[in-house]
Order: sequence, then C-alpha cells, then structure tokens
Amino acid sequence: MQTRKGQSIEDASMQMIEDEIGSHPYNEKEWPIVRRIIHSTADFDFADKNRIIFHKDAIQSGMNALRNGCSIIVDVNGVIGGLNKQNPKDFGNKIICNISSPEIMELAKKEGKTRSQVSMRAAIADIEGGIVAIGNAPTALLEVIQMVREGIVKPALIIGIPVGFICAAESKEALSNLEEVPFITNIGRKGGSSSASAVINAIFKLIRADHRLE
Amino acid sequence: MQTRKGQSIEDASMQMIEDEIGSHPYNEKEWPIVRRIIHSTADFDFADKNRIIFHKDAIQSGMNALRNGCSIIVDVNGVIGGLNKQNPKDFGNKIICNISSPEIMELAKKEGKTRSQVSMRAAIADIEGGIVAIGNAPTALLEVIQMVREGIVKPALIIGIPVGFICAAESKEALSNLEEVPFITNIGRKGGSSSASAVINAIFKLIRADHRLE
Repeated sequence: MQTRKGQSIEDASMQMIEDEIGSHPYNEKEWPIVRRIIHSTADFDFADKNRIIFHKDAIQSGMNALRNGCSIIVDVNGVIGGLNKQNPKDFGNKIICNISSPEIMELAKKEGKTRSQVSMRAAIADIEGGIVAIGNAPTALLEVIQMVREGIVKPALIIGIPVGFICAAESKEALSNLEEVPFITNIGRKGGSSSASAVINAIFKLIRADHRLE
Repeated sequence: MQTRKGQSIEDASMQMIEDEIGSHPYNEKEWPIVRRIIHSTADFDFADKNRIIFHKDAIQSGMNALRNGCSIIVDVNGVIGGLNKQNPKDFGNKIICNISSPEIMELAKKEGKTRSQVSMRAAIADIEGGIVAIGNAPTALLEVIQMVREGIVKPALIIGIPVGFICAAESKEALSNLEEVPFITNIGRKGGSSSASAVINAIFKLIRADHRLE
C-alpha cells in the first residue's frame, strides 16, 4: 500500500527512467521488470553492461505460480525487506528465508558450506513449484542449479541476481545456461537483494494489470 | 554470525576490492566503510562518481552511540534486512522502522506525505541521540534534516544514502551542508538499503576492532 504522495513520486521516477533510457531490447512484459530494477538502484547498467536476461517462459511461469499462491524462497532477509507485503498477503504466498535458523547454522558449519547454501536444500519442498529469489549469495544460487540438475526439484522460476566478487558473475552465467527451469538473471557482478525484490514486485504488478484487463 | 566458508568468501571479496580500487581519498576508518558499500553493491562508483562523504565527527560519533546502545531508526525494512543482527543484540540497540504501522499510513494520507516521511517525526524520542539510517526515501531524509534545523532533535549520526530519481541527490546535498549533526552520505542518485546497512555493519566492525585493541 502506498500513499498518493508515494505513488506520485514513483510515477515521476518511472517517467524519468523512460525519458533517459533511450532504446532497449526488452519486450512489453520484460521492460516493466527491468525498469523497476533501475528504479530501485538508480543504475542504468542493468539495461546495458549488467543487463537482465529472461528465459523465454520466465515471466509467464512466474506470474502463474505467484497468482496461484506458490511459495517464495529467498536467500537473505534483505529480499523480504524489499517486497511489497500486500502482494503475498493477497495471493497467499508463503515467504521462506531460513538463513538465520540455528539448525541451518549448525549444518553449514558441519558441511563447510555457507548458511544460505544449506538453507536452499533444506527448503526443497517449498522450492518445488515455487519461486526462488537469490539476491545475495552465489553459493545459494549454485546450490539451486545443482538441485535442478540432480532432477530433485523444479521451481516455477529462479530469480538469480546475487551481487558480489566471488562467483557471482559465474553463478549467473551457469543459470543462464540452465534449460530445465525458467530463470531471470543478469550479467556480471552487480545485483543485490533490492533488485531481486524489484523483480518479484514487478511480476505482481503484471499479474494485477492482467486482472484489470480481464 | 558467519560460517568459516562465508567468512572466507567475504575476505576474498574484500581482497579483490583492494586489488582493483587503486588510490582513493579515504582515511583508515573511512575506507572500511566505503569498501563494505562496494562489497554490497559491486559498484566502484561509490568511491568515485557517487562517492561517500563523511562529516569529520561522523565515525567517532556513530561508534560511541552504537557502543552505548543507541536506537537505530531506519526508513524501510530493507535496511533491517541487511543488518548483521548479532551487533544490535550484543550492544543492546533497538531497531525502529514504523513505515508499516497503520497509524503512520493514516497520518501520511491525512497530511499528503509519504509513510517514511511521517515515520521519522513519529520516532522523535528514539532519534534523539540515535542513529538514523535512510536507504530509500529522500522524503524521510529531508524530514530528518528539517527536524534538526527546527532544533527539536539531535541524532548522533545521520546515514543518508537514499536511492532514486526524485530528490535523492538533492536530499543528500542538503545533508552534506548540515552543520549541526554528523552525517555520512554520498553524491548523486545511487544508494539504497543495502548501502545503508553496510555502513552500520562496518561501524560495528570498527567498534569490535577497537575492543580487540584495548
């Protein structure tokens, strides 16, 4: 929920992005998603040097799953922080982030892994048919890709936009080569939890626009 | 709390930033803060085009206040999401984010303001002597600056790194001209909740380093 003042600032921001972006390669469903990432980062590199890559089925699959109340599994609490909470409330989506659970910490220490990595395999039941959104940890994204390749899980959509210096770009390249599952990712090191939340918020906007058209 | 694996990734990332940054204008207390922002965004512009500006008393004032258990008042939940929660737990800092409260929503509608803007004036008792961290809303930052100018509140530190197209750069320029209160801000449109959290996490690291030296 936004106030009129908040909405007018958002509208003016989106208009500034439209005015400054020039030509871009995105179609009419992709562009609102990319535009919302630029809105949340003030970084036009997400349409260019660090551009967003969409699997051909990504948006439709994500819209269908979210509309049907699928779970949203995230790697860090920052992704939850950036979500418009009215959407999961209205559509009945459970939001899961296990990184802070003591069992995950224990297991990660034992296995010599990161907490976010271990938290993915622990969420397997929710990931099946759900939306995975990785905004921070390449290790978590690589784990989900590995789980898909093992054939043990098939999410409706993987949003993989981790940020960082170690394996971030590489994990996203691996995701962009995944054929089994729809994905939204980007090129290079940049990304982050705000960008991952922006993608989810934007897909919910597309769902609501569809509803208005029906 | 981080696993050994998580810590080793962080250390390697910081080393990559050191290797790539070249010369920079920051002193030994400022640089770990800027480096952590770059770490959380993979964006070297924060040391250059969108560089971080420190009031001369900012770091010491922030360290003193956090160490003594001051409140941390944030504009959006995303800033909380990015915080290392062990720090406020160990030092007894209350974290305050009122943006989702129904009373704030009601008041914002009535006054034609944004929710985050109204949430600042509602948190006046905690802001006095506390740390304000704005990662998203220029309107919230401008409200805090206005409250300081009115002489009704004096935070220990204002971290003002909102992101955006409407008034973000302008609100940060206003903060950088504030004389009454220490601040950390940056130039231009870029910023965000991850950057605001990064500053707080980095100041806590400086506090812990000081403790180890004692």
